Amino acid sequence: MEEVQRRIEFRLTELGIELPKSPSANGNYETWVLDQGIFATSGQLSRVGENVIEGQLNQGDNLDEARHAARVCILRCLSVAQRALGSLDRIERIITIRGFISASPNFTEHSAVLDGASDLLIEIFGDRGPHIRTSVGVASLPAGGLVEIELTARVAQTV
Amino acid sequence: MEEVQRRIEFRLTELGIELPKSPSANGNYETWVLDQGIFATSGQLSRVGENVIEGQLNQGDNLDEARHAARVCILRCLSVAQRALGSLDRIERIITIRGFISASPNFTEHSAVLDGASDLLIEIFGDRGPHIRTSVGVASLPAGGLVEIELTARVAQTV
Amino acid sequence: MEEVQRRIEFRLTELGIELPKSPSANGNYETWVLDQGIFATSGQLSRVGENVIEGQLNQGDNLDEARHAARVCILRCLSVAQRALGSLDRIERIITIRGFISASPNFTEHSAVLDGASDLLIEIFGDRGPHIRTSVGVASLPAGGLVEIELTARVAQTV
Repeated sequence: MEEVQRRIEFRLTELGIELPKSPSANGNYETWVLDQGIFATSGQLSRVGENVIEGQLNQGDNLDEARHAARVCILRCLSVAQRALGSLDRIERIITIRGFISASPNFTEHSAVLDGASDLLIEIFGDRGPHIRTSVGVASLPAGGLVEIELTARVAQTV
Repeated sequence: MEEVQRRIEFRLTELGIELPKSPSANGNYETWVLDQGIFATSGQLSRVGENVIEGQLNQGDNLDEARHAARVCILRCLSVAQRALGSLDRIERIITIRGFISASPNFTEHSAVLDGASDLLIEIFGDRGPHIRTSVGVASLPAGGLVEIELTARVAQTV
Repeated sequence: MEEVQRRIEFRLTELGIELPKSPSANGNYETWVLDQGIFATSGQLSRVGENVIEGQLNQGDNLDEARHAARVCILRCLSVAQRALGSLDRIERIITIRGFISASPNFTEHSAVLDGASDLLIEIFGDRGPHIRTSVGVASLPAGGLVEIELTARVAQTV
């Protein structure tokens, strides 16, 4: 039973992924809510500890850093979820991610950037990972962040 | 019974509207989700087959193409819904659309553009069509798209 | 019983806050929806009657007007809620706000601006006020607005 309950955490170890320390809010709001089985996070910036992954994408830019930034946002969402839910195994399925990318008007590769987030969710959650997604390019993000992602998931009442 | 079940499809024929082929995702995500009676789509771009309706709106631009683009986004949402649900008659009501318009900082006519989407939903769904809406102007959209819309609806468990 | 039912309205009086006249939609959409206990508003602009609080934030700008604009958006959301629900006491908890700020690419103080909205919600609703939040900087908003906010809340079936 215990092993079953910790399979997502086991999967993280298997993938060599360590979740960051659960982030706190940078303002007068909560990082998560759980309402009738729907878990939702506040928008999570591409930030590692105090270091914000900053920037604005232009067409032609190498996408590696941005894809990494999208991945970092998801790791923060999952860190929030783990602290909130006790275990990531309570997540029955990821429902949606909404990704905001700081980008110039000529940028077109939003989907490739957000795949950095989606690939990771599927890698971790397997058949519980597929989700819907909206990707847009925005003028700017808090603290000069490069990517911001909010996530919702369906959560079991008990593991 | 069959006629009742197909009245939205009948309405589409009446309006001379043919839904596009159900779009596939342009990345590692799903086009729709159905969770406890809420149907939701991924953001749908203004795209007809492989042809993206591109652009960025400036103040003073003629809005006809943009309104058409908003309409195209909705038709893609409905095509996704039809394939997902079997019939559009399972939609009890449209709940929300969120519209992202690629626009310059001086653009102000976002509501007129998104009315292209809202008008169509009400034309098709009648008293099941009214919905809430958020309209914003963004720096850029995937593939250079002009408009992107996500939609949610309340769905009956059976028709 | 009546006193209990009107405690949020009493709190507004205590704070010297008068809700604006409930806004109408500036397009072919509804201002609110209530679906299975979730109340949600359309995006509400920073607008007082016919006067839109316009603008676009640049880094270094004084934030007072923008924080006021965020507050104005929330007052409009609450005015919509009061008319829709009969009493704000039916709100069991605020769930989320999503804030769009018209901002230049170099702007970074989105969180400080949106705290104008979050502070007000917590001031009014107390322990029912904390919420999740997403803040982004967009290229432009309808009617040249400075801030636009959408809100969701969990609502009791009866007060």
